[in-house]
Amino acid sequence: MNALTINLEPHSEVPLYEQIYQYIKRDIQKGRISPGEKLPSTRSLAEYLEVSRSTVELAYEQLASEGYIESVPYKGTFVLDVRELYRLKPKQAVRREPKEEKKDILYDFSPNGVDLKRFPYQVWRKLSKDVLSEDKSELFRMGDPKGEYGLRRAVASYLHQARGVNCTPEQIIIGAGNDYMLLLLHTILGHSHKIAFENPTYRQAYRMFERLGYPVCTVDMDKYGMEADILRKTEADIAYVMPSHQFPLGIVMPIKRRMELLEWADEQAGRYLIEDDYDSEFRYKGKPIPALKGYDVSEKVIYLGTFSKSIAPAIRMSYMVLPETLLQVYEENCRFISPTVSRVDQMILERFIEDGYFERHLNRMRAVYKSRHDTFLNCLKPFAGTCRISGENAGVHLLLTFEDGRSEEELIRLAREAKVAVYGLSSYDTQGSRKHQASVLLGYANMEEEKIKEAAAVLKKVWLP
Amino acid sequence: MNALTINLEPHSEVPLYEQIYQYIKRDIQKGRISPGEKLPSTRSLAEYLEVSRSTVELAYEQLASEGYIESVPYKGTFVLDVRELYRLKPKQAVRREPKEEKKDILYDFSPNGVDLKRFPYQVWRKLSKDVLSEDKSELFRMGDPKGEYGLRRAVASYLHQARGVNCTPEQIIIGAGNDYMLLLLHTILGHSHKIAFENPTYRQAYRMFERLGYPVCTVDMDKYGMEADILRKTEADIAYVMPSHQFPLGIVMPIKRRMELLEWADEQAGRYLIEDDYDSEFRYKGKPIPALKGYDVSEKVIYLGTFSKSIAPAIRMSYMVLPETLLQVYEENCRFISPTVSRVDQMILERFIEDGYFERHLNRMRAVYKSRHDTFLNCLKPFAGTCRISGENAGVHLLLTFEDGRSEEELIRLAREAKVAVYGLSSYDTQGSRKHQASVLLGYANMEEEKIKEAAAVLKKVWLP
Repeated sequence: MNALTINLEPHSEVPLYEQIYQYIKRDIQKGRISPGEKLPSTRSLAEYLEVSRSTVELAYEQLASEGYIESVPYKGTFVLDVRELYRLKPKQAVRREPKEEKKDILYDFSPNGVDLKRFPYQVWRKLSKDVLSEDKSELFRMGDPKGEYGLRRAVASYLHQARGVNCTPEQIIIGAGNDYMLLLLHTILGHSHKIAFENPTYRQAYRMFERLGYPVCTVDMDKYGMEADILRKTEADIAYVMPSHQFPLGIVMPIKRRMELLEWADEQAGRYLIEDDYDSEFRYKGKPIPALKGYDVSEKVIYLGTFSKSIAPAIRMSYMVLPETLLQVYEENCRFISPTVSRVDQMILERFIEDGYFERHLNRMRAVYKSRHDTFLNCLKPFAGTCRISGENAGVHLLLTFEDGRSEEELIRLAREAKVAVYGLSSYDTQGSRKHQASVLLGYANMEEEKIKEAAAVLKKVWLP
Repeated sequence: MNALTINLEPHSEVPLYEQIYQYIKRDIQKGRISPGEKLPSTRSLAEYLEVSRSTVELAYEQLASEGYIESVPYKGTFVLDVRELYRLKPKQAVRREPKEEKKDILYDFSPNGVDLKRFPYQVWRKLSKDVLSEDKSELFRMGDPKGEYGLRRAVASYLHQARGVNCTPEQIIIGAGNDYMLLLLHTILGHSHKIAFENPTYRQAYRMFERLGYPVCTVDMDKYGMEADILRKTEADIAYVMPSHQFPLGIVMPIKRRMELLEWADEQAGRYLIEDDYDSEFRYKGKPIPALKGYDVSEKVIYLGTFSKSIAPAIRMSYMVLPETLLQVYEENCRFISPTVSRVDQMILERFIEDGYFERHLNRMRAVYKSRHDTFLNCLKPFAGTCRISGENAGVHLLLTFEDGRSEEELIRLAREAKVAVYGLSSYDTQGSRKHQASVLLGYANMEEEKIKEAAAVLKKVWLP
């Protein structure tokens, strides 16, 4: 190659070395210089272009580091074979994520709602400012894989007082939401397990375990929850249960049934119960029932809790309490996995709990939800002859079961035509095989009392004879 | 049961119903009332205790909801069998997490360092305040499983400009760190894959895939990186590579080798390359080399990027660009998995990028690191006769390879005795079998120039003859 046609623009914003680099690169890309061809020496090219030698050297270095040319000692600089593939492909940014439209809905009884109007933004903002003001660069280091010790201590103390769970901060792992917790649990448990779920159940967890390749099965419930004898027959060694307020049925599992499940777990080494305590904070009659984990003398219960319902879904913080054996597996094999919640967020939450804001917020929300719960039950009195109401006194949804022969689809359609969204129980039946009556879920967490009254009046009109 | 001895304290802070509940519960627990025994009716107990009937009813309801008693219509209220297990176990909070002590170390050349002194706290605090001030409760809803669209758009634009990657925001998923990204990728890929790593490699990723049960193997590198022919023989169908600055060796993979790896991936359906572009931002000579993903015309590259190195490890935000086929699998089977980064944090980062702070911060850090890099190289000049220096001109660590017969352990020990921490290359050799010379890693990201000079002088004293 002797005739490099490089028209340098000395007044361009692009540095000279880059102009040279660009020219030669383009020539190689377009095949105007072939693989194996020798480039001029830096000195001769510099003289030819009337630039300094170091400018050409920089261009050659860049070309060499990107693999376009190679310098062979005592021989010179040669063009490499870069094949045809290098060019950036043109790509159109096509939006293909249509939002799920709910525009026609006036009243949405989503069972996954959380009232965020009452979220203490002021407090959160203040704590956030306080934490960030401390300006310790430590704050922006990675942090403990299990989560900040202070936050874990606060969670342990909360669990002790509010849920009757006695655990050490060492047993607690903080993570970015329940789904992440299950992924982490997967790395601890390994593959060889069969997981039993209540039927119907929380689809999210069921789908996760299924997707991770575990054999999964469901166990029908009686009015107390999952039946230990049926569980025994499934040959599952892990059972996923929601004793404090089963989703979606709203069953509060009595202590006797809890003991039976613990007994099942005790019968064989390697059996575990996963207790998903997702909305235990909201109970409107009497004291909260201690968690299953509170009775776990044999270290058989993996406890999952979240701040999604009690604070806000978007803060993405959950916690898991591991029994001793699994904690050991975690410490030995999984502790290398990096934390998933920023230290700043963890410290905001720690203060939110320790300074008493969490307790105040919980009590306030409990009062708000209880009042909606009572209002709703009151509005549903005319429904007494037509359907059975269940799941009351805890959580943030009710269940209406119709025994008049109408199907779930029909009931949902009637409501939807009147701009009310209700949710069919059968969509939580993961097997699709369970015979159950027409039941609809009505979540009230995200609906003001006035709206509940209006919506109940609409439902009365379309559902009652 | 006729003689309930309940000494109520009317002036106690504990409500009367709870006192009754506590007494009866304790009696059941201690076996003073046996399973099957009938409790007095609420009316007669209320008369006997001189309290209102509703007080007793509340106590009974609580006992019933916890499973201690059962009300049988027309028959009365009976004590249930609660067995022996119910009691809360006493547990001592034992701290067993000794901090890893590095107290003796004066100079720590950790290759995982990040300079956080120059983190723009003021800006982050301001953006954080702005985002939180908007007071939209929407902010605290869950958000898109893939991450906020605005942030993904900002990342796509950054990738296009800085890394030569053309992708749409739809192909990008935001997640809480690289380890989480690999867990998510696991749910997309499924189990039946064999993963090949460079040798030596980034242990974190290797351990994660190993822990998830994948067969893993390593492929030795020549001076250009992973060799496609050796890869071909492993029967792996996924290769994990770091083309822009291999960790720990610091190799920048030339374009020819990149093409060879893409060709390998093209040879069979289902083959993929995972490109970990962990510190591509820091390159001190010439323009950054486009990412492997930039040449990915056949949709074979899974691209991983992180803000841990470029902003701060604690913000826990990474991103993954999926090729079309895997994006489809994700959309169909894994989209249900909840997001792992809070919306607030995502929006802070989005503004940080869009308002130009990210670019400014990157340029500043590049200048800071480059200056340390140059100073360090300069200080290492006397080492030229004793060891070979590699991994320069990019990233934030150098590699010194000694060929004078001394072992890695000896070199590390000599440094440590002089209070300097350096890191042996062999600890990154996942197989423990690779024959390599004594090499030590020296990370300089977290060390001011003065300290680098001091530390280099110490190393000169203990390492050079």
